[in-house]
Parts: sequence; structure tokens; C-alpha cells
Amino acid sequence: MRIGIIGAGQLGRMMALAGIPLGLEFAMYDRSRDVPGAAVADIATGRFDDRSRLARFARGVDVVTFDWENVPVASARAIARIRPVWPPPRALEVAQDRLSEKRIFERNGIAVAPYAAVDTAADLERAVAALGAPGILKTRRLGYDGKGQVRLVRARDARDAYARLAGQPLIYERLVKFSKEVSLIAARGRTGDVETYPLAENVHTDGILAITRAPWPDTRLQRLAERNHSRLMRALGYVGVLCVEYFVERGRLVANEMAPRVHNSGHWTIEGAVTSQFENHVRAVAGLPLGSAAPRGHAVMVNVIGAKPRARELLGRPGLHWHDYGKSARPGRKLGHVTFVTGGRASRDRVARQLRRRLIPQR
Amino acid sequence: MRIGIIGAGQLGRMMALAGIPLGLEFAMYDRSRDVPGAAVADIATGRFDDRSRLARFARGVDVVTFDWENVPVASARAIARIRPVWPPPRALEVAQDRLSEKRIFERNGIAVAPYAAVDTAADLERAVAALGAPGILKTRRLGYDGKGQVRLVRARDARDAYARLAGQPLIYERLVKFSKEVSLIAARGRTGDVETYPLAENVHTDGILAITRAPWPDTRLQRLAERNHSRLMRALGYVGVLCVEYFVERGRLVANEMAPRVHNSGHWTIEGAVTSQFENHVRAVAGLPLGSAAPRGHAVMVNVIGAKPRARELLGRPGLHWHDYGKSARPGRKLGHVTFVTGGRASRDRVARQLRRRLIPQR
Repeated sequence: MRIGIIGAGQLGRMMALAGIPLGLEFAMYDRSRDVPGAAVADIATGRFDDRSRLARFARGVDVVTFDWENVPVASARAIARIRPVWPPPRALEVAQDRLSEKRIFERNGIAVAPYAAVDTAADLERAVAALGAPGILKTRRLGYDGKGQVRLVRARDARDAYARLAGQPLIYERLVKFSKEVSLIAARGRTGDVETYPLAENVHTDGILAITRAPWPDTRLQRLAERNHSRLMRALGYVGVLCVEYFVERGRLVANEMAPRVHNSGHWTIEGAVTSQFENHVRAVAGLPLGSAAPRGHAVMVNVIGAKPRARELLGRPGLHWHDYGKSARPGRKLGHVTFVTGGRASRDRVARQLRRRLIPQR
Repeated sequence: MRIGIIGAGQLGRMMALAGIPLGLEFAMYDRSRDVPGAAVADIATGRFDDRSRLARFARGVDVVTFDWENVPVASARAIARIRPVWPPPRALEVAQDRLSEKRIFERNGIAVAPYAAVDTAADLERAVAALGAPGILKTRRLGYDGKGQVRLVRARDARDAYARLAGQPLIYERLVKFSKEVSLIAARGRTGDVETYPLAENVHTDGILAITRAPWPDTRLQRLAERNHSRLMRALGYVGVLCVEYFVERGRLVANEMAPRVHNSGHWTIEGAVTSQFENHVRAVAGLPLGSAAPRGHAVMVNVIGAKPRARELLGRPGLHWHDYGKSARPGRKLGHVTFVTGGRASRDRVARQLRRRLIPQR
């Protein structure tokens, strides 16, 4: 079976590395051939809104998935008329707009931060008056890694904040005073079977994921997050890996956003779980049974961002796993990640602190 | 860094799958493009004795290794004048001839079965008279998976046995009454650093490896095998993964043969060890530090030979890992393997029995 992936970044690359051992074949579609996926698959090139090129690509594969949630929904729907597309285009559509994302969370009984849609300066003033400050004004579409966001410390910041993002649909959210950020990842197969990873705890730096530690053991919140996931996946007719990111606010889970794809906060599963998120995603998309998502010890994953240390130095620590995405260095760019898995939480956390000092620029 | 692999079978494929995440690039050379490695690397084609094609291939990479121990030694030496070749061609030369293999074992104090070189019918009669029967007459070169071997039950079988293999250099070995077959795999880096996997226990069917279970816990024999390995690797100036297969005869290790490459009895290390034999081999060849060879639980690996079960059925057992080499089915051909890793020996052995019944034709 040949799987087509729209987008050939590191996520597509890691999907193919996980799927090739299963006997699956991969083709990828991206804007250029100079992409991480090129090491493991043929790359077809074209714009993401070029429906005739996308159609030609789709006809050459058996099933289509994506490694990027901003594939135009119209393109995904056009492909779905030619070949099965998983996750379903509807999941892309919901995840591409913070307002529809909030609404699907609410419709499924999932707590979110107080919010209001903002299309004008007056909308924002009303929202701030009703919900209070501090808060964050965000673009509804195409935000990621902290881009397209302005923080309002006080109500009187509203005018400046609006000026910086005006001209596109926005959303104002009251700031959540969270103690932790966590995420849940699960895979759902074509027959509705589900494999759920344990909650992971995430730390962001400048809006970009820096460190994930897993499992993050909290039986009550794990159950709650699994219930949420189960409702969302059923509502969307979901197939593949889904990630939901949460804030933990006074023992409650407040949903921040969802990613209808494999997710950076699940990279630890390559070495830290029986079956990785990448393998389970391609198994789901290919209609194969899912593998166990049980953790294998305690894992820490640290992103390598902006500048790449020498592999020789990274690998000098026995037990460290290095994943180089094959990208050239550029400030703020995710270039790779390292993972360390150990038997105990204390030793894992010691290594996490060392890796953090070593790999993440301190301010 | 670009690594060239002579031979693009499943071993080359698994090397590339392990090395791509480290940021390494791969090119392979084989007789045809219809090879397992084609999924993960560009394939250059040519005969293994075509020195000009091999030279062109070598000039396009930084370092050369092989996934097959019968690469002609003259070819390996020619390549070594252009690019570093690891393991060293001398290791190929020794491993390609059962007589020189026995001699290097003996020179390094490693026990072997009583043997004699056989070039004529009279040689064989003398050998059987001196060493006794039962025994095995083997071709000195190009034997693998039980091919090129004839068993002598009684001394009077000598004439028939000789007739079947005559015309090439032979060796007669007295049969070892072994209780187990085990193998040791270690990797040696360019600076002489070594990472050693635990002993694995192997079961062969019709001369082909069927099942490996690891770790095979015997502290005394582990130490002995490590000492042997260390002597051999130093004697050969070895870089890369080396495997030595042993018979266990009354608590002694009797060396059977060595493989100067990653080995089927180490496939369990992909999921069963912190760093797989494939990753450690490419790390060694690339001059990178080695990763920990410590086991992660108790593993069983079962080869899939001759006929391929449906992935859907194999993967129905949660926790099972399936490695499809992407080859077409043919009797006696290794098409893939499955691995299962668990926390305890008893549960591992239960799964091993089930997999054996399921995957290995019973006679």
C-alpha cells in the first residue's frame, strides 16, 4: 500500500521511517524538493492549492494524509473525492480556525478559556470589558508556535493590540493562570479502535515547544482527557493521530488547541512507547490494527531549535537518541530533537535539567 | 556525511532506517534496483567485481561499509584505496574462508570444533579417521544458511559426502553435541570504544535462523564471549558490528563462525536494546560515539521465511513489531521478522512459543 503525505517536513519524514518497516510505501507532496521527507520518499512538488497537481499526486497513491494542518480545506476535500483522506478534511477545517475549534470543544463538553470573536476594534473593547484582562488577542487562522498573537496586560492595551493584527478574523481569550501545560495524544483506527498515550507535560519557550516529559501521571486528568478525546474523535469521524493541548488550571483541564496530526509533544513515543505516534498514525491511515501506546519507562524530549549541536557531542551521552531533521539552521527553526528514556522519574528529570541547560538558550 | 553500503538487502535497509534520524545520508550498490534498500536510498547497480563502477560509487560517498560478507575482498581492497572501508577488508577475507576463520579463532584462544582442511577424498578419509564421526563436511567459501554442507553420520559416508562437494576447498569438522546455540554481537568505534549486547540464544530450522531470544543470561559465558570478541576485534583493527556464533557444549563456548556485519541474531535490538545494532554499526562507521547496548526487557525475534502472513493479522497482537523487508515471497527466503519485548522472561517465552507455532512451518 502506498501512502501519500501532503507536506514533507520532519513529521512526514518520521511517518515514513515508522511505516517503511511495515512494508508500506510513501510518496510526499510539498512546495520544494529540499525537504526533510526527501531522504525517505519521492517528492512531488506544487502549491497546496494547485488542485490538478494534487489530483495527479493522489491518483498515484492508495490513501492520503498530511503532516501539516494548514493544507487548504478545499484542496483536502478535492483530494477526498479521488482517494480516502485521513484525518477527515472536516478535522482540518475545525483546527484551522480558533473559533470553530473553541466551539467544537464546547459542544463536546470540553472546558475552554473565556473567549470572544473579534472582527473590529469595538468587538475587542467589548470583549475585554466582558471577559477582563490580561488576555491574548490571536488571529483565528494560520497561527502556530506563538505567531499571530499579542498579549494584553491591561484593558487599555486593546487599541494597540488590535492595530497589530487588524484586517483578519481574530479571537480574544482571557489568559489562563495555568500551573502546567499538558497534551494528550491518541490514535483512532478505521474501525473506531483507539490507542491512547499517557498525558505529557510540555514547557514552551517563546511560544515554541521546548521540552516534553512523559508520562505525566495524573489518573483523574488522564481519564478526563481521554473522555474529551473520545468525544472529539467520534464527532469528527476521526482516523489517525489527534493531539489536544491543555492548560492545567487549579486541577482542571482547559483545552487550548488541537492538532489533527502527529505532534511535537509526541516525539518521545519513538523510544518511550511500545508503538510510536508515527507508526500508529500510519497504521490507522493504512487500515491496520493499532499498536500498544503503553509507555516504556520515563521519557524526556528536548527540541533542538535554531542551531544544531554536533552529533558527535550529543551522542557522547550513552542512551541519548538524536533525531536530525536534515534541515539547514535558521533562528527559531526546529532542526531536530533528542530523547532520553530511563526507568525512574528522578533520573529522567535530572537528565531533563542537564539537556535543558545544554540545548535551550537561557535568557 | 554520506555512507555507501555495498549490498542493499534488508540489512542495508535497516542500517539506513537507523542512520537517517542521525542526519546521515545513504547510497547503496547492488546488482539490481529491485532490492529492499531501494525504499530508503539511491541504488547504484553493477557487479560486485566491477572495480570501475565500484570506484565511481565510492567517490560519491564519504565512507563505505557492506551488508553482505561475500563482497570480493579484491573489490573491498580497491575501494579502500579511495575511501575508508569499515569493517576492514581483512575481516571480510577471514570470514569468507572457514579455514582462516578457524585459524583466527585459535590464534586468539577461542575454542573451535576439531577440524581439518580437505582438498581430496584421501584428505577427508584421513580427517574422519583422526577426528571421528559424526561430522560435517563444508565448503570453505560462500556457505550460508546451511548451504554447502553435508553431514557424515558414520565414517563410511565420507565417499558420498566428498562426491557431493568435490572440486572446491573443503573443511571437515567434528559435530559438536551442543545444548544451545548462542551469539554475541558488539560494536567497536573508530577510537576503539566497544558496546556489547547480551548473549542471544538462537534456534535454527533447516540451517536458517528461526528464533532468537535475548538476553540469554549467563554471566560466565557472557564474560568469556566478550573476552573473545575483544581479542578478535583488536586483532582485526575492527570498526563496526561483529557477530560470533557459538555452540554451548557442556558449559563451554565453541565458536562456529563469525559475521563481519550486522546479523540476523541481533534484529531484536531494534526494539529490545537502548541502541540497535544497526544504529551502532552506522555510528561506528561514521566515527560517531556508540550508543548504549543495554537490553530493554526480554525480547524474542522470529524470522518470517518463504511466505508472508498478512500485516493485518500479525499486527492484531498489540505490542508486536513487524519488519517487512519489501521482498517477494520465495521458499526459504527471509521476508521479514517480528519482535516482541516484555518485562519478564516467562511471558516472553510464552509469546515465543505462540509465534513459533504461528510463523514457523512445523514438521
